[in-house]
Amino acid sequence: MNAEIITIGDEILIGQIVDTNSAFLGQQLNKIGIDILQITSIKDEQDTILKALKDAENRVDVIITTGGLGPTKDDLTKHTMCRFFNDELVLDQNTLQHVEDIFEKYVNHPILEANRSQAYLPSKCIALNNQYGTAPGMWFEKEGKVYIALPGVPFEMKGLVRKEVIPRLKDRFNRPFILHKTVLTYGLGESAIADKIEAWHNNLPKFIKLAYLPSLGRVRLRLTARGDDEEVLQSSINKEIKKLHELIGDIIKGYEDENTIEENIAKSLTDKHLTLATAESCTGGRLAAKFTEIPGASAYFKGSIVSYATSAKHDVLNISKDFIQAHSVVSAEITKEMALSVQNLFKSDIAVATTGNAGPTKGDSDAEIGTVFIALAHLSEVTVKKFNFGNHRERVTQKAVNKALEMLYDRLKD
Amino acid sequence: MNAEIITIGDEILIGQIVDTNSAFLGQQLNKIGIDILQITSIKDEQDTILKALKDAENRVDVIITTGGLGPTKDDLTKHTMCRFFNDELVLDQNTLQHVEDIFEKYVNHPILEANRSQAYLPSKCIALNNQYGTAPGMWFEKEGKVYIALPGVPFEMKGLVRKEVIPRLKDRFNRPFILHKTVLTYGLGESAIADKIEAWHNNLPKFIKLAYLPSLGRVRLRLTARGDDEEVLQSSINKEIKKLHELIGDIIKGYEDENTIEENIAKSLTDKHLTLATAESCTGGRLAAKFTEIPGASAYFKGSIVSYATSAKHDVLNISKDFIQAHSVVSAEITKEMALSVQNLFKSDIAVATTGNAGPTKGDSDAEIGTVFIALAHLSEVTVKKFNFGNHRERVTQKAVNKALEMLYDRLKD
Repeated sequence: MNAEIITIGDEILIGQIVDTNSAFLGQQLNKIGIDILQITSIKDEQDTILKALKDAENRVDVIITTGGLGPTKDDLTKHTMCRFFNDELVLDQNTLQHVEDIFEKYVNHPILEANRSQAYLPSKCIALNNQYGTAPGMWFEKEGKVYIALPGVPFEMKGLVRKEVIPRLKDRFNRPFILHKTVLTYGLGESAIADKIEAWHNNLPKFIKLAYLPSLGRVRLRLTARGDDEEVLQSSINKEIKKLHELIGDIIKGYEDENTIEENIAKSLTDKHLTLATAESCTGGRLAAKFTEIPGASAYFKGSIVSYATSAKHDVLNISKDFIQAHSVVSAEITKEMALSVQNLFKSDIAVATTGNAGPTKGDSDAEIGTVFIALAHLSEVTVKKFNFGNHRERVTQKAVNKALEMLYDRLKD
Repeated sequence: MNAEIITIGDEILIGQIVDTNSAFLGQQLNKIGIDILQITSIKDEQDTILKALKDAENRVDVIITTGGLGPTKDDLTKHTMCRFFNDELVLDQNTLQHVEDIFEKYVNHPILEANRSQAYLPSKCIALNNQYGTAPGMWFEKEGKVYIALPGVPFEMKGLVRKEVIPRLKDRFNRPFILHKTVLTYGLGESAIADKIEAWHNNLPKFIKLAYLPSLGRVRLRLTARGDDEEVLQSSINKEIKKLHELIGDIIKGYEDENTIEENIAKSLTDKHLTLATAESCTGGRLAAKFTEIPGASAYFKGSIVSYATSAKHDVLNISKDFIQAHSVVSAEITKEMALSVQNLFKSDIAVATTGNAGPTKGDSDAEIGTVFIALAHLSEVTVKKFNFGNHRERVTQKAVNKALEMLYDRLKD
């Protein structure tokens, strides 16, 4: 069972937007045992779309397109599907009702002919109800293959995939199992890990594949097993992970399954009834954003003070000007004070603080570009660590966020 | 002049990472007049890569691959290039020196054979120096076409594109001009805009194309002109934009060229010597993160208080418990107080505050899910607006960030 994703739209090709839809589709299809062989992004031109559909049906069983379903002239997918399936547009009453309802409820201008025209669909398709927008998805079948057209707006597409596409694909096809297990490591580079696990890698069973995913100070090792017997796959993966632990157990920090590291931290804090606050200088609110992304964050996350300007460390975090002067604004001492100060202000059990110099210029400190201090206050105990994350602004802040999460995660595991 | 991007790696197809490399490459190539016809993401298997290269060379002049250049066994691009060009690997002394230097300077374990092997490159390629990593890029030519292989790590790839790929492509090819001008609108939906500008759209010159890009309460209209005479393209686009202003001038809020709305705000604040602070509840640090992304933010951005828990509004922002009780935590009154409180604490000229209920559950307030209040304090003047951004958590917070930026931008333009 395999699939191809075709994303339609010049905005992807000229880099005006990043295509996040494909990643979401890849995850969701993979979970039900459908392998994505290719993702193809193309222009919204009828002939190009037709060619891509023809090429894809020679490769795969399921073809999913996103984009080109809006109400305007540059949205061509529906008409192209009519050409591809030798079909014509007919009015779908349910869709018309849905479009009219949305306009009545949410839109501040009267419904237009262009909106009503969204209810005209190819006669051969099954309309998939789009709960977040006016453009329905479309499901076609031809000679044992399935063709699905979805809107390009991410949350509309996601809603359709969860509510309509996945359940229908599960019903429609017998699928094998694909299991992934991703081991999260930090502390050693990709090539050094490869050196340590070479013999093990060479002896992996044929149905298990290993991939290295290095990123910002972490290396993830992904094991993928494919086959018809889920139990065999699961036990084989577990056996290999056990062997891996004997080889590099010291750098294995956990597993990336469904959960991100921040979700694991959230769970741990909630379970232990602990609360958290952050004081952020170089990470500029990104740590807080990570935590508040997760529904239910108010159970453990009190808040954050982004003390970006040096004056804010004095005015808001109440660190004395003399102390800042004495130690410099990017220093272990200040970072420690920041953690204690937010812990006190927010009345939280745990506090994390970051300061650093992400570059490109030195700012209000003498610290070398790339220098980052991270402090962790847990009740009355404070630890501070110093890092150098190199000379690339975006990378420095991202690595600082990652490292802060790792320090917190390690601390909560103790 | 056109190109295809081939991104290699199972992690893209199973959705473990979002492919941001293609968008960056699309932007950069477009700027120098190279049109991306297709982006193809495939598995890291030799036969699949070979097939993709062959298909691409039938379509385009320039083929760029990313990924598969690491030091480990699952990195196959280099060997595949040897098969494709009927070539063999030879030691490149400059690259070896570079790899040894990096290990000496940044890596905490000794250099391994796998790392040294990164200096073996196909004899027919020109090595492109990777200033941020050990894997060089590779440049091949065959029958008038150019093939470029780049590492998949984003900041390594970006460095190589800026320093090596773009200058070489500019030298190598005569290119036409591609000009984009994107008009930013907010306040009217896609179909309503289309209705107003239909006649104008139908009369656009053939070399100018219009696209609608709706996203989170904004609709961007992108005009793209292609041709050999840059001046003609520029003046034609300007003429059409002028006509557009006559039709929908009331909803046109600016242009998206190189600058994002937050960059325009940053520039405006810096020019006017104004400082900014934010108080964030439902946006959870995302506003602060937007501002601190921009180098030089410390010139105008003082910081933020993320008062996520209700207690933080009292403990940190000093809003009295009775006042919170009287008005409920998601209310115009509290949002206004939050703005005034951070303005006072950070001693900033301007403050923006957000509260809201992003769902999925109601939390500490009675406000309907999707309700968001945004307050803007400018010196002693405070305005508050109420919105409903629907029932999707991620969308609600993103729309709140967008709307807060828009309110600030509108205010600074006055």
